[in-house]
Amino acid sequence: MGKALIIGAGGVSNVVVHKCCQNPDVFEEICLASRTKAKCDAIVASLPETKTKVTTAQVDADNTQEVVDLIRSFQPDIVINVALPYQDLTIMDACLETGVDYLDTANYEPPDVPKFEYKWQWAYREKFKKAGITALLGSGFDPGVTGVFSAYAQKHYFDEIHTIDILDANAGDHGYSFATNFNPEINIREITANGRYFKDGHWVETEPLEIKKVYDFPQIGEKDIYLLYHEELESLSQNIKGIKQIRFWMTFSQKYLTHLNVLQNVGMTSIEPIEFEGKQIAPIHFLKAVLPDPASLGPRTKGKTNIGCIFQGRKDGKPQTYYVYNICDHEEAYREVGSQAISYTTGVPAMIGAMLMLQGTWKKPGVYNVEEFDPDPFMDALNKHGLPWHESFEPTLLD
Amino acid sequence: MGKALIIGAGGVSNVVVHKCCQNPDVFEEICLASRTKAKCDAIVASLPETKTKVTTAQVDADNTQEVVDLIRSFQPDIVINVALPYQDLTIMDACLETGVDYLDTANYEPPDVPKFEYKWQWAYREKFKKAGITALLGSGFDPGVTGVFSAYAQKHYFDEIHTIDILDANAGDHGYSFATNFNPEINIREITANGRYFKDGHWVETEPLEIKKVYDFPQIGEKDIYLLYHEELESLSQNIKGIKQIRFWMTFSQKYLTHLNVLQNVGMTSIEPIEFEGKQIAPIHFLKAVLPDPASLGPRTKGKTNIGCIFQGRKDGKPQTYYVYNICDHEEAYREVGSQAISYTTGVPAMIGAMLMLQGTWKKPGVYNVEEFDPDPFMDALNKHGLPWHESFEPTLLD
Repeated sequence: MGKALIIGAGGVSNVVVHKCCQNPDVFEEICLASRTKAKCDAIVASLPETKTKVTTAQVDADNTQEVVDLIRSFQPDIVINVALPYQDLTIMDACLETGVDYLDTANYEPPDVPKFEYKWQWAYREKFKKAGITALLGSGFDPGVTGVFSAYAQKHYFDEIHTIDILDANAGDHGYSFATNFNPEINIREITANGRYFKDGHWVETEPLEIKKVYDFPQIGEKDIYLLYHEELESLSQNIKGIKQIRFWMTFSQKYLTHLNVLQNVGMTSIEPIEFEGKQIAPIHFLKAVLPDPASLGPRTKGKTNIGCIFQGRKDGKPQTYYVYNICDHEEAYREVGSQAISYTTGVPAMIGAMLMLQGTWKKPGVYNVEEFDPDPFMDALNKHGLPWHESFEPTLLD
Repeated sequence: MGKALIIGAGGVSNVVVHKCCQNPDVFEEICLASRTKAKCDAIVASLPETKTKVTTAQVDADNTQEVVDLIRSFQPDIVINVALPYQDLTIMDACLETGVDYLDTANYEPPDVPKFEYKWQWAYREKFKKAGITALLGSGFDPGVTGVFSAYAQKHYFDEIHTIDILDANAGDHGYSFATNFNPEINIREITANGRYFKDGHWVETEPLEIKKVYDFPQIGEKDIYLLYHEELESLSQNIKGIKQIRFWMTFSQKYLTHLNVLQNVGMTSIEPIEFEGKQIAPIHFLKAVLPDPASLGPRTKGKTNIGCIFQGRKDGKPQTYYVYNICDHEEAYREVGSQAISYTTGVPAMIGAMLMLQGTWKKPGVYNVEEFDPDPFMDALNKHGLPWHESFEPTLLD
């Protein structure tokens, strides 16, 4: 059916490539490109036999012209951006210049002052419309499937949605006292940033991790959840008409928070170099060298993730509640594609979004978030492609 | 009255030198010696005006011959050993060879397998007796004053002491989230070693920090205390006749333990070098460089220590309880001698022990622990020289 250029060669990319190759009728040809071609080659070498034609290429995604040149040479129907969020705009520029559809999984952040905001990418709406091409933003799990869940709830079960609680639980256990899935700086930013949620038309700020609750998750059990800001709150607050409150909750174990706090207290997470035996060393770089290699976590992580949305509102004049969620098993994901659930739950929806775009099902000129399309084909695809969902009309509610 | 050779130039040595110089009638002349003479000179430079004649010297205390040579040249009446515990035996050998009295504050430990045991030093009993010289072991606070307190209780208030609880509380606050007074390796050994106490003629082992209680200390308030092994338990279990139980308790705050545990969990306290940017670096060495310099803690530590002993037994056929303790203020100690209470409470009893030996009050050929001498002159001296004690006959008891 079509050709996809996939940019980026991390854990999510590995999942996207595996899932595309499981659907060779749609993804007849893919090119996997990143700054380090060897990483692409390693992913390709790990693939089982497939009918998809797979090639790799070197590209610096910070450089629009390099991306343009690669697009012109490979001639893809879509660019799947699973590189760094800093590179969203250069890649969108390249898509505009070459007239190719665009998809990503996380919104643009300026490299210097990280801020989760769609404004930079939403500013491309008119340009994409004029160029007659589609940009699908945030087609991962959260953002991504959480938006699809919201559109699905809206379409089938509600006249009005009043509140949405997005719950992201990771009950994975890698067996180490402490390890981070990715950059500890990002982990620390997450727990030290103010919380924020949408209520009655405006945003409410909280202290970092100020609002904590306990939620009893299906198949995972009771977990501490903390209110955080997350990027889909911005688009959902605009796209779910009449919404009164949207909150995002993430699980952190007390042990995880204690470890991160102590390391921060003693200065081990600082990026300010200290003098050590005549060398300048940033403590966080030394800490990374002491902690387990994130790449080593995949094969040893057990347990499940549970990500979903709880909706409250009205249908046919009566109160209505609805909870829809996916449970993903770290070990099963690793067995299937060689990445655990964190990457799997992001990579599969990226593949599905690209599939719907290539099939013409999700296609209209402009820049869109996932909840602006018909959710039904995406919901079907989740069940078929490894992220089956469950629903309940009587969930435990958060006050 | 006499001449003292003081070996070692750390925080305790600094206190000993200051206190000797406050008593020039007893300490007419002192020589301060250590591996690094500059450290001795720095201590001497910090002294207020004194009638004591003070000199410094370089000596490697691992080398008996070097100590012998220094003793022969300085001709002291006593050697005060406040160097490392690894050096007790070489210095005792030098005292034997030159016929000079010996005093220390901590028992010998073999450098490779740290073990708190008196057996190595008690093996010198006959030799010292034959040479007609005195060795006073463990004349710090604990061991040291705790032994004097025990002898004092025995002499004045009990026919039989049944139980002793030694309580060591440090309520000092240096204002940092985490810092160690000394080598973090020693801190870690302390909290990861099995606990041990004496009961009914034998030793009972516990898991590390297994036994925790809360005690409401005079002037300090409620603190978490943990049962640890401490070296004076060995000598007191032999020297306090008829004793049924002796335990040692130390305060650790939950915050301190959490920090130390996390740092240990993530591997930051390991002495095994890791490869970092082409260099082999032991994580604990990097951690030390990140943590506040222990030397910086003195001037900023506020609060008090409270160290004492609770005795239970019988007197004149009736049950008797007795609690005797000292309270030492970190800031006052620092103002007086430029070291905070941890060093002060160890250094003052070392000076007092040496004073009693020079005066001939505590003098008999052989190797002795402090509780084997008449406690009264030592108790008087504590009140005079900065460590006044308090007593109570109705203390809160530990079950």
